[in-house]
Amino acid sequence: MAVSDLMDKVVSLCKRRGFIFPSAEIYGGFRSTYDYGPLGSLMLQKVKGAWWMDMVQKRRDVVPIDAAILSSPKIWEASGHLANFTDPLVDCRNCKERWRADHIDGVCPKCGSSDLTDARAFNMMFKTFVGPVEDAAAVAYLRPETAQGMFVNFKLVQQSLSLKPPFGIAQVGKSFRNEITPGNFVFRTREFEQMEMEYFVHPGEAVKWHEYWYGERYNWYLSLGIPKEMIRLRHHDKEELSHYSAGTVDVEFLFPWGWGELEGIANRTDYDLRAHMNASGEDLTYFDQTSGERYLPYVIEPAAGATRTMMAFLIAGYSEDEVAGEKRTLLRLHPRVAPYTVCVLPLSKKPELKEVAERIYGELSESFSVAYDDTQSIGKRYRRQDEIGTPFCVTVDFDTLTDGAVTVRDRDSTQQIRIPISELYDHISLRVRTWPN
Amino acid sequence: MAVSDLMDKVVSLCKRRGFIFPSAEIYGGFRSTYDYGPLGSLMLQKVKGAWWMDMVQKRRDVVPIDAAILSSPKIWEASGHLANFTDPLVDCRNCKERWRADHIDGVCPKCGSSDLTDARAFNMMFKTFVGPVEDAAAVAYLRPETAQGMFVNFKLVQQSLSLKPPFGIAQVGKSFRNEITPGNFVFRTREFEQMEMEYFVHPGEAVKWHEYWYGERYNWYLSLGIPKEMIRLRHHDKEELSHYSAGTVDVEFLFPWGWGELEGIANRTDYDLRAHMNASGEDLTYFDQTSGERYLPYVIEPAAGATRTMMAFLIAGYSEDEVAGEKRTLLRLHPRVAPYTVCVLPLSKKPELKEVAERIYGELSESFSVAYDDTQSIGKRYRRQDEIGTPFCVTVDFDTLTDGAVTVRDRDSTQQIRIPISELYDHISLRVRTWPN
Repeated sequence: MAVSDLMDKVVSLCKRRGFIFPSAEIYGGFRSTYDYGPLGSLMLQKVKGAWWMDMVQKRRDVVPIDAAILSSPKIWEASGHLANFTDPLVDCRNCKERWRADHIDGVCPKCGSSDLTDARAFNMMFKTFVGPVEDAAAVAYLRPETAQGMFVNFKLVQQSLSLKPPFGIAQVGKSFRNEITPGNFVFRTREFEQMEMEYFVHPGEAVKWHEYWYGERYNWYLSLGIPKEMIRLRHHDKEELSHYSAGTVDVEFLFPWGWGELEGIANRTDYDLRAHMNASGEDLTYFDQTSGERYLPYVIEPAAGATRTMMAFLIAGYSEDEVAGEKRTLLRLHPRVAPYTVCVLPLSKKPELKEVAERIYGELSESFSVAYDDTQSIGKRYRRQDEIGTPFCVTVDFDTLTDGAVTVRDRDSTQQIRIPISELYDHISLRVRTWPN
Repeated sequence: MAVSDLMDKVVSLCKRRGFIFPSAEIYGGFRSTYDYGPLGSLMLQKVKGAWWMDMVQKRRDVVPIDAAILSSPKIWEASGHLANFTDPLVDCRNCKERWRADHIDGVCPKCGSSDLTDARAFNMMFKTFVGPVEDAAAVAYLRPETAQGMFVNFKLVQQSLSLKPPFGIAQVGKSFRNEITPGNFVFRTREFEQMEMEYFVHPGEAVKWHEYWYGERYNWYLSLGIPKEMIRLRHHDKEELSHYSAGTVDVEFLFPWGWGELEGIANRTDYDLRAHMNASGEDLTYFDQTSGERYLPYVIEPAAGATRTMMAFLIAGYSEDEVAGEKRTLLRLHPRVAPYTVCVLPLSKKPELKEVAERIYGELSESFSVAYDDTQSIGKRYRRQDEIGTPFCVTVDFDTLTDGAVTVRDRDSTQQIRIPISELYDHISLRVRTWPN
């Protein structure tokens, strides 16, 4: 499939089937913001849930936090964002349009004038005022990253749970950046969702843990079904490194327009803790009672974008094939990130089938996200579930009433097997855990 | 316990054990914003998860969305928020302080002057600018409620899934209101989290569904352990009704300072859909193919606050008692909303116990949020878990190595029973489902 075709098809599917809509579409949309519809919000929740399960819930060494979005200018002054989180902008003196200096070539793309101002630094943080008076004392910023929440709360979290390095503090949540040129669908948006973890370690172990984490994170995407040829690790050159980083490795995905970052794994050293220690006057060092050593921890940060990761799953999973001579569209999503894990389908609307189907829905929905469809022909319903990536279709037919079993259809192979209702939950659990086998 | 004592104790526990911290505390806090620490973010997630399970995942008639926080002024113009979502403010001409007109008595509380301006309407929405130019065309508002996301996306959602009324669209997410007087800990904050559902029905069935939903919602709090005497339904008087409502019933909780709203269940009529239909020019009516009738649905809205609901659970659950002559503090939280469902405790740090304990941790954490504690005496560890509301403590002792069983201790009764490891998951699942029995 041609590159632009693939992108168009994914975007069109997202709109048609209720994954992602332009925000406020009835008013003509709103400045590259997007709303996630029923399937999109379910899928985004699954992506975040998979990250949470593997990075927080199953790990004894990582705890979560949930910090505020409205945040103190003091945080961003100390972190360097107020001074450095900028894009260079120029104004066209002729038509008054404003452009990113590094995106144009000496001439206004709108009117063609070369009468441009010098570039000025434009801060990318959204500003607002808190309280009744709009003055300097009332300024707040929408956080441009979740990471600083972990740094300013480092001591409180460490002490409240008596944590000993190495340990991590994780957060999933929205961040906001006033991008001048958002684009590529939900790849770059002004409002986006991050999945970040700050892993605090002894400075002497930072390089080892950095290697550990970029290996772990690379494998995470593979474990959720991203094919090896669509993903790579890329080490930043010295010149490319952020001011806080002693080493960064990106997990990149092969988007239709080329390789793009899904996640950066940075060795942030003690840059942030030291900055907040200096600015606040609070002692943020850690005292190791066993070794008698006092030190400021280094930080390894795996920082992923939830929305662009979801987009990568959609692109990697999109495919078209033929079943029994009929074309079909399907999303080959891993069950852990598919909007629905299962769809329950009574073969007809007869009350005796409905009753069984609803009971199965009730039981499975305790553990899985479950769709229910009793409209149209069974073939059409299978196609609809294929198109939204539902891995398993459970069909209740008239034999069910006598044999107590249902048909489980596999999305990718379209093969069907007969399973007793009493074994259905175990069967699906096992298939999810051992997918794709 | 005296009322102010209880509040102080809950706030102090929240700080000490890492539930809730003042935001940016190392910088002296920031304007009544709060960060949720490890236990608080886990608990908040559980509260939202319980709502999601009962209001979305287990219901065939409700689908979710996740709309943007940065939103178009056109939405708030149509909804009436730009004109009406205001507080009356007065300025003191003497000391320049600003006050809510309905909170003062003709005299400035700061300097005592009665030289006050007339009251002016102050809009409570946070404003910011999107894109490189700060002009009127670039204004965006942080949404003051999640509800409008469901109204502006009503048609897209209804069509993408071919939904037929009655059906609901639900959303959990942050909203922002520039409150002049935030307070009572996290009861009233400028940044807060909502759990809202808009249930679209035939106008003739609105009253019936309103009754259904306030009954359902009242029972939901009871099912999660709020005692009957701490919760009530309160019907709004005619004079108290919002401009969009034909009837509102609040679920109120008995906070230490009196009854306060956890949730409002309103019959919003077709106010919002009609407003957006008129403003956008889009036809938002629904055509019922069976009856041949075309109508604009009415909306029943159960709108709950996640953060204040969490606070209600903390207050209702806080207690102190004596065990074997020793005082203890405990949070009697329902397992569905406790930060950790289980704590795994190896009796000592011996490798053979550790190995078993870690294996149990690994297995249970696939399904539950699990703590792990191998520090200090077992009695101290139990107290620590009691204080953060962990319902079940699983202790691995030396007998475990021979009998393959562990001790499960109940938080509230402190009773212990011996359970084979192979039955542990089923035992805990059953206890959670049948709690408190």
